[in-house]
Amino acid sequence: MITLACGCTFGTAPDQKRGYCGHEEIELALVKLYHATGEERYLRLAQYFVDERGRQPYYFDLEAERRGTPGFFEAHRAGGHLRRSHAYNQAHKLVREQTEVVGHAVRAMYLYCAMADIAGETGDETLRVACRRLWDHLTTRRMYITGGIGSAAENEGFTHDYDLPNESAYAETCAAIGLVFWASRMARLEHDGRYMDVLERALYNGVISGVSHDGTRFFYDNPLASDGGAHRQEWFGVACCPPNLARLLASLGQYIYAHSDAEAVVHLYVQSTGRLQLGDQAVTIRQETDYPWDGAVTLRLGMEHPATFALRLRRPEWSRTATLMVNGEAVDVAGRTEKGYIVIEQEWADGATIRLDLAMPVERVYANPQVRQNVGHVALQRGPLVYCLEQVDNVVATQRTALPTDAVLTVGAKTEDLGGLVVVSGDASVAGTRDWDDALYRTHGATLDPIRARAIPYYAWDNRQPGDMCVWIHER
Amino acid sequence: MITLACGCTFGTAPDQKRGYCGHEEIELALVKLYHATGEERYLRLAQYFVDERGRQPYYFDLEAERRGTPGFFEAHRAGGHLRRSHAYNQAHKLVREQTEVVGHAVRAMYLYCAMADIAGETGDETLRVACRRLWDHLTTRRMYITGGIGSAAENEGFTHDYDLPNESAYAETCAAIGLVFWASRMARLEHDGRYMDVLERALYNGVISGVSHDGTRFFYDNPLASDGGAHRQEWFGVACCPPNLARLLASLGQYIYAHSDAEAVVHLYVQSTGRLQLGDQAVTIRQETDYPWDGAVTLRLGMEHPATFALRLRRPEWSRTATLMVNGEAVDVAGRTEKGYIVIEQEWADGATIRLDLAMPVERVYANPQVRQNVGHVALQRGPLVYCLEQVDNVVATQRTALPTDAVLTVGAKTEDLGGLVVVSGDASVAGTRDWDDALYRTHGATLDPIRARAIPYYAWDNRQPGDMCVWIHER
Repeated sequence: MITLACGCTFGTAPDQKRGYCGHEEIELALVKLYHATGEERYLRLAQYFVDERGRQPYYFDLEAERRGTPGFFEAHRAGGHLRRSHAYNQAHKLVREQTEVVGHAVRAMYLYCAMADIAGETGDETLRVACRRLWDHLTTRRMYITGGIGSAAENEGFTHDYDLPNESAYAETCAAIGLVFWASRMARLEHDGRYMDVLERALYNGVISGVSHDGTRFFYDNPLASDGGAHRQEWFGVACCPPNLARLLASLGQYIYAHSDAEAVVHLYVQSTGRLQLGDQAVTIRQETDYPWDGAVTLRLGMEHPATFALRLRRPEWSRTATLMVNGEAVDVAGRTEKGYIVIEQEWADGATIRLDLAMPVERVYANPQVRQNVGHVALQRGPLVYCLEQVDNVVATQRTALPTDAVLTVGAKTEDLGGLVVVSGDASVAGTRDWDDALYRTHGATLDPIRARAIPYYAWDNRQPGDMCVWIHER
Repeated sequence: MITLACGCTFGTAPDQKRGYCGHEEIELALVKLYHATGEERYLRLAQYFVDERGRQPYYFDLEAERRGTPGFFEAHRAGGHLRRSHAYNQAHKLVREQTEVVGHAVRAMYLYCAMADIAGETGDETLRVACRRLWDHLTTRRMYITGGIGSAAENEGFTHDYDLPNESAYAETCAAIGLVFWASRMARLEHDGRYMDVLERALYNGVISGVSHDGTRFFYDNPLASDGGAHRQEWFGVACCPPNLARLLASLGQYIYAHSDAEAVVHLYVQSTGRLQLGDQAVTIRQETDYPWDGAVTLRLGMEHPATFALRLRRPEWSRTATLMVNGEAVDVAGRTEKGYIVIEQEWADGATIRLDLAMPVERVYANPQVRQNVGHVALQRGPLVYCLEQVDNVVATQRTALPTDAVLTVGAKTEDLGGLVVVSGDASVAGTRDWDDALYRTHGATLDPIRARAIPYYAWDNRQPGDMCVWIHER
């Protein structure tokens, strides 16, 4: 147990409240404040909040009793069973004993961020292990293919394993942003590409779907299918998502590069220039790329004096074929890949050029059959982008479309609209309605009409005409 | 406009309130009271309520203003846009101008019942036409295959055309019962078998699904799929469904037979004896049948003196092959079928025997592709019974099961359990999870494992072990 010497309102001393926040966020903010000020008491307070969370008797129950409103906690959370538990804000167990991601998704992400931060600052292995366990649970049971998380509107959060409804998906923009925050911290903690894979998945799909192409309208929740009724709004009563998006996009630079004294890391491929301080050597990395539309990336290094360091280039999980040239010479990729990064350790000189080519075919992606909502369905992904069918491109309601298992999928040239999109198309069939007259049910199935199905990146949907949409497409 | 002479609180006179009930039911009850008492003022009041409904300015708005609570109507209906409109209780338009079934499903049914009643009593053709239009809309756009109606919990009612989600289906037991009430009245009004077809569909599926086999537990809402979380309850805060079910089942006799001076009608095949008064001739009809498990029905007539009348036997919409024997002699069915009834008009004597054989193969039923939720799926129906897969019979989660288009479906012998069920089975496949390890998404689909799929009548589900269930099965 940590004894706080800060005279703070919260803490374990007799004159302190053993409270912690119902909506986690202060914890990670305190770690930031610690970094900004160098004052350790802020880190200690963050630690206290994290350690205290879930301790019995429950603080929220005691507080309600003290206020003479024993029903306060219940009433406060009224509206459904998912909100009426300590799990709603991850206070049901001590954080180190938590094995499943539960409750309100944004709160969960912010708590896990703080846990990862503190593990990194203090070397607390029990917190790191807890984070890892929660990460594995989230990414193998409760995450949409878009990186969206939190299936249910009822608690703005998690329900049960493999419960990933598409049309009613909550997948709050802020929760996907929270996942980016957490993933970034986990990557820092464990130096494993798996975290950046998820970060990239969320960033290019479930995060930026939250804003319209012209930047004026927002999704609070990001469904993976629509019957035509879901549209971005200009603002919200609780307007957390729009500024959170703005903040993330404005701070994107910190997610692209990382460095230590002996290495320079390229996590994300984004046209940009990074200025990294490797010990006393300043290194610039200039990326030229049209990623995510193309997997060709050229990196040019700039430095005053030649220096030896490891350049770590992330190889995304979706990459099956990759070629690498260093200063014009082919370099073996497979033998140099460690935990999702291609490592090139050598002496580098100013003007060194690295050319990475990540082949970017369209992939068919399937969900674990325990996700009952996606059985018999396929999703299309190219590079980090998850695709969807939108009615405006497909004439008919997209959920009536079926893609044959052997359909050839064609990658189009980049279009002009919406800032440029690579469209994927293929011959498909659509359940016809012409011969149904007014029948609602009948004993012979629909005739299948041929259609050229056109898919666009999911993030770009609902920017043209209203209509329906689906990420998961019937496969036949 | 009808002027009421009854001195009633409600009416169009200056000293009367131009009100009508927010939850329709009084209207049909007043028609019953008129029949019971012979007092026409009750019929007139029912007429008034029906005619006044939807007149502008809206009564509910005026009433709210009079009470000094202009927000009353809004607040009263708070909870979602579907509840915040006059359409919620079918007061958005004059009833004769209504073309779509909208709002709270039970209220809608009770209103339409009254409209049909009054049309029958008064010969009001405009009301009959309105009923017919609403009926067509309901049965071609907004009715579940189980006869359940009202897709959404939010308004306990209708949403939009072809929106028939399975797992979140509301399909309130009382609404299906209301549909039985309305269908029966429409059959009386138009002498058309199509109404009894829907009545039978609701009765054998979405109505009796509302009660457990032992009669002690009830569904309020009747979903067509479950992930294992839906179960009948002993009672409800608003306990309309259990007694409504009891009332319907206790009054079943009135739905089986009908008669006029010159005809005897058998609407439903149920082991029973009907006593009908045809003019001054009393006729008994004894039905021997194991319907709905078997389509063989033997009818024996009893009467004091030979008499000439038309015997009308309903031929259900699902019947493709039917044979008929009258006193041991084959009779042509096709040539005698009028609006869904086989009509045999002749002189009948005591002891006359009619044997009707309705072939009852398992049918594959498909939904109009505009029902996005059922694209690529098939339902099984045998006779009037809609079937479902339940986990207890199928080892694995039923929503992972796919039925090949050419699978032979076998009809089993009647089982012992749950009062005797005819089980339908066939070779199917199930998306296997064995080789997925912890993958949530991957680029190759699930392997398909063979399974013997067993389907039971939908009404009988959730009577054994908890588990998942689906009516609409993937077809491959």
